[in-house]
Amino acid sequence: MASGEDELIAWLRRAARGAGGEAIGDDAAFLPPGGPWAVTVDTQIEGVHFLPGLAPERLARRLLAVNLSDLAAVGAEPRWAVLALAVPPGFACRPFFRALLKACRGHGLRLVGGDLARGERLSAVLTLAGERVPGGRWVTRTGGRAGDGLWLGGRVGESALGRHLLARGAAWEGRGVTLPPPFEAPRSLAAAARRAVRRHLAPKPQLELGRWLAGRPRAAALDVSDGLAIDLHRLCRQSGVGGRIEARALAFPAALDALARRLGQSPLDLALAGGEDYVLLFALPAGEQPPPAFHSFQIGELTSGPGLLIEGEDGIEALAARGWDHLATGTEAGAGSQPRANAPIQKNPPPA
Amino acid sequence: MASGEDELIAWLRRAARGAGGEAIGDDAAFLPPGGPWAVTVDTQIEGVHFLPGLAPERLARRLLAVNLSDLAAVGAEPRWAVLALAVPPGFACRPFFRALLKACRGHGLRLVGGDLARGERLSAVLTLAGERVPGGRWVTRTGGRAGDGLWLGGRVGESALGRHLLARGAAWEGRGVTLPPPFEAPRSLAAAARRAVRRHLAPKPQLELGRWLAGRPRAAALDVSDGLAIDLHRLCRQSGVGGRIEARALAFPAALDALARRLGQSPLDLALAGGEDYVLLFALPAGEQPPPAFHSFQIGELTSGPGLLIEGEDGIEALAARGWDHLATGTEAGAGSQPRANAPIQKNPPPA
Repeated sequence: MASGEDELIAWLRRAARGAGGEAIGDDAAFLPPGGPWAVTVDTQIEGVHFLPGLAPERLARRLLAVNLSDLAAVGAEPRWAVLALAVPPGFACRPFFRALLKACRGHGLRLVGGDLARGERLSAVLTLAGERVPGGRWVTRTGGRAGDGLWLGGRVGESALGRHLLARGAAWEGRGVTLPPPFEAPRSLAAAARRAVRRHLAPKPQLELGRWLAGRPRAAALDVSDGLAIDLHRLCRQSGVGGRIEARALAFPAALDALARRLGQSPLDLALAGGEDYVLLFALPAGEQPPPAFHSFQIGELTSGPGLLIEGEDGIEALAARGWDHLATGTEAGAGSQPRANAPIQKNPPPA
Repeated sequence: MASGEDELIAWLRRAARGAGGEAIGDDAAFLPPGGPWAVTVDTQIEGVHFLPGLAPERLARRLLAVNLSDLAAVGAEPRWAVLALAVPPGFACRPFFRALLKACRGHGLRLVGGDLARGERLSAVLTLAGERVPGGRWVTRTGGRAGDGLWLGGRVGESALGRHLLARGAAWEGRGVTLPPPFEAPRSLAAAARRAVRRHLAPKPQLELGRWLAGRPRAAALDVSDGLAIDLHRLCRQSGVGGRIEARALAFPAALDALARRLGQSPLDLALAGGEDYVLLFALPAGEQPPPAFHSFQIGELTSGPGLLIEGEDGIEALAARGWDHLATGTEAGAGSQPRANAPIQKNPPPA
């Protein structure tokens, strides 16, 4: 059930044996092995990771947030950033850097270097290094055990709805999100739509939750970036366990649910395979629970396996590893991947 | 005389004050400030940094070599690599990674993590971390003093000739470089052409020379990537000195000279502004010289300034800061930049 990307990464881990490959496939690499530094890298390419026309400031903040989410997943304290930026002629470099530097400062990060190139497409690659929390331990995907509670640090599926709205013409300019006409009314729908767009463009990395997890005697975590289902498969595979989740734990509130259906989307599908949620998916020993301030909620538990199950209204089913496969294309997508999410974001999507 | 890129970087250093910006603009950032780690990042984008159709293995090795050259410039021992790769459908990922891992092993580097994405254009961003040589010191651009000898670690201009040949249809497949017909004969020309193509596609980072420099009581260095003239201006500006070089020290051997003229290029222009040479440009106190094994040669000396001069057959002239300006375009290029080198590499260049 592994995606093309997961297969390549598994191959790479084997091929890289002796050259550091054992770390490949985690949210961050620990340096020296097991040491006090965590390093992670993320890419944002125009037309692939974001729609053309995104304001430079928003791109800068989103690039950083997405990357910080990987540090949050391992429980690291952000320290340094290195940027590689390829810009088309006329790109507003200074607003981009001003926003990036301000956001870096807010997280105690130092931008220490980078590389600047021309490119036809705007492309930004950020490498971050974080430090282990004093007295804490690294949180990885391997720390789950059968019987652990499975938790989410926040709602999943809302970001994907925001992506659908942006593809249909929603925009975030200045302080307000504008919506394409069919989503302007009723008011409850519009409020949910605006929240979804903000959620997509301005994810909030759960660094505090990651620090808390780093202080536990045992925990496993990753951040939900490619889709809950595929990321849960990764957590279970790397921990050597199975899992079981409840569909009702993923239910949308009424307005969000109505918005999803208006967009022709199944709320459960969005929650399972939408991706780009950037909340932490984590496992804790049974009985342990995070402080209420984190607004985490339990969605199921790890089992002795094999396989992953989801319990819904119609009973218990196998949970497919759906979500983004960064190497699949619309036509080549495997049985477990989601062609919609795999296709590049279109510049001129069909009207809703 | 600063380029658009240098201006942006100078602005960024000011804007980033308090957020680590003091390190921006060097070949590598030292972490923690003045500490034992050097971090650098480099980008290779299809159509910008290399011609479409480059074999994945060659791209992998070139990406690493170009990046290692930055570590060589500061005298660092390569340690870790993190890769962000964006690939179009059908890209041969495994040959790319096999070649990259093998090249990493050869330099004692561990590939510890990365990010994989789809992209319309092949784009690879590599972040490297290196460690200070035991007992050595960091080599920077600021360590030059008036009276120092100015040295090059190898010939400059040959790589740019290779780039011209590739744009005209030369190719390196398997073990042999094939040339477009006009360069197949005479034999001496063909040999020089093949060497130039190899020099362009497979630069050799001068890590040994960098280690030697790191062991000196005082040295300044950078690697010649954007062009000798512009990089020499950077060295002098950051060391607060002037400089003077001799054109005859940059002369090509006869066959290479003939090849350049056949391609309609001035050998001296190629040497001064061709770029992508990836040899070290360094300054040493007068009287010191590198061991002969490095094949370095002196090209001039640093002066109390102001400005940079070049002594040629027609006397002494000011040396313009020519070379690649990563932010300039053909039409917007400043007086000091070189429109030819600034334009993206063309897929279908006009015939020679």
